[in-house]
Amino acid sequence: MKQTRVAYAGGIYHATEAEEGLKLQDGRIVAEEEVVWLPPVQPRTVFALGLNYSDHASELSFNAPEEPLVFLKGPNTFVGHRSVTRRPSDVTNMHYECELAVVIGSQARKVKREDAYEYVAGYTVANDYAFRDYLENYYRPNLRVKNRDNCTPIGPWLVSADQISDPMNLSLKTYVNGEITQEGSTKDMIFGIPELIEYLSSFMTLSPGDVILTGTPKGTVDTKVGDEVITEIEGVGRLKNTIVGDEASHL
Amino acid sequence: MKQTRVAYAGGIYHATEAEEGLKLQDGRIVAEEEVVWLPPVQPRTVFALGLNYSDHASELSFNAPEEPLVFLKGPNTFVGHRSVTRRPSDVTNMHYECELAVVIGSQARKVKREDAYEYVAGYTVANDYAFRDYLENYYRPNLRVKNRDNCTPIGPWLVSADQISDPMNLSLKTYVNGEITQEGSTKDMIFGIPELIEYLSSFMTLSPGDVILTGTPKGTVDTKVGDEVITEIEGVGRLKNTIVGDEASHL
Repeated sequence: MKQTRVAYAGGIYHATEAEEGLKLQDGRIVAEEEVVWLPPVQPRTVFALGLNYSDHASELSFNAPEEPLVFLKGPNTFVGHRSVTRRPSDVTNMHYECELAVVIGSQARKVKREDAYEYVAGYTVANDYAFRDYLENYYRPNLRVKNRDNCTPIGPWLVSADQISDPMNLSLKTYVNGEITQEGSTKDMIFGIPELIEYLSSFMTLSPGDVILTGTPKGTVDTKVGDEVITEIEGVGRLKNTIVGDEASHL
Repeated sequence: MKQTRVAYAGGIYHATEAEEGLKLQDGRIVAEEEVVWLPPVQPRTVFALGLNYSDHASELSFNAPEEPLVFLKGPNTFVGHRSVTRRPSDVTNMHYECELAVVIGSQARKVKREDAYEYVAGYTVANDYAFRDYLENYYRPNLRVKNRDNCTPIGPWLVSADQISDPMNLSLKTYVNGEITQEGSTKDMIFGIPELIEYLSSFMTLSPGDVILTGTPKGTVDTKVGDEVITEIEGVGRLKNTIVGDEASHL
């Protein structure tokens, strides 16, 4: 099953795929263009992985980490499909990151890796933009790199776990203005989904709806104002975002 | 005004100080011992400062950072006054951190430091425990240091901003089993409250209820199972927490 959240005619609805368009929870069928797509999940906590593909670590001139490099993201960062994200004019490098987002389905504490998939509700696509100018501080605070408003498009769909036979073998692709610029596979993650759930749940509780952004492969390039960026994961979805400039001063 | 949230007789209530005990929002007066104290705020985002007092940076053998070293905390970390926090037996150093918690009162974006206090609702006390064993990784992910369940007691009261004439000149004290072990003043922060609000709001939006934990001074010592830890800030409150061991396996 694929589901999402949309705003339509004054309200917010859960919606599923219909033959033509979307089916709202009240049964109405609406065209995709008539709705505002919202993030398909509203997590309590959002985890994100740094350098979880060794080829991406190399392209940033870092060594691959020996334990998962996890940081948190605030709810200000999420926006849905067909959103805009601002590139501030004082930034010299802003790159997209196509990432498989794992959505937790039930409370998870001290879960062994062999049981980890029982705690997964499903998957969606994220584009975890990085503002790379701020990456190189000695203490590595990453708030200005990874926590700006609307810097993480996510969606369009939450695809239930039963629809994805092997989440550790999915192709990831990013297209900028229609040209493919990033290509990889989830099989190249350093720490896979079962290991990440085991790791996080070993010292804290994961809650239903929580999201783990599992990192991005090589091929992150600078993007410019006006670029249309599509991040796509096999069987999960195709997420569109457009980069805007300082005229969007509310962002 | 001082206010908090408590659980009592099957419900959750906002409460204020009464001459004897607490006054619930429905007017009932109840004794302090009859309620369960909850965190006085339910933030959208929790920010915490690392090394924001130079004497504490020195005691950890770090240099003082040149920009605010800010990380996020998840909602799993907060517990109220008179809570317990677990010291896992595999940790060799767990220290308290008495911190002034600043609570945001209205949406803040691109705020200048001279206007920053207009965006503050009030203050409370936090004890942002650190599990120091995990501090020294090259990439400095701090989830295992700072994001365990129930590792951040906060409260008892949210004290409104009008009650605190100079938040940058308050004494902080920690008592372990009645003995004073940490003593400092908010005047020794490297980045003060106005600078922190200016910094954070320069690249993202702060929301009402968001919390900034402003860091801790020197005097953080290892604590043991059974210790009663009181963190106290002049005019703001006195927050009690007790350390428990692995028998509290739910934590």
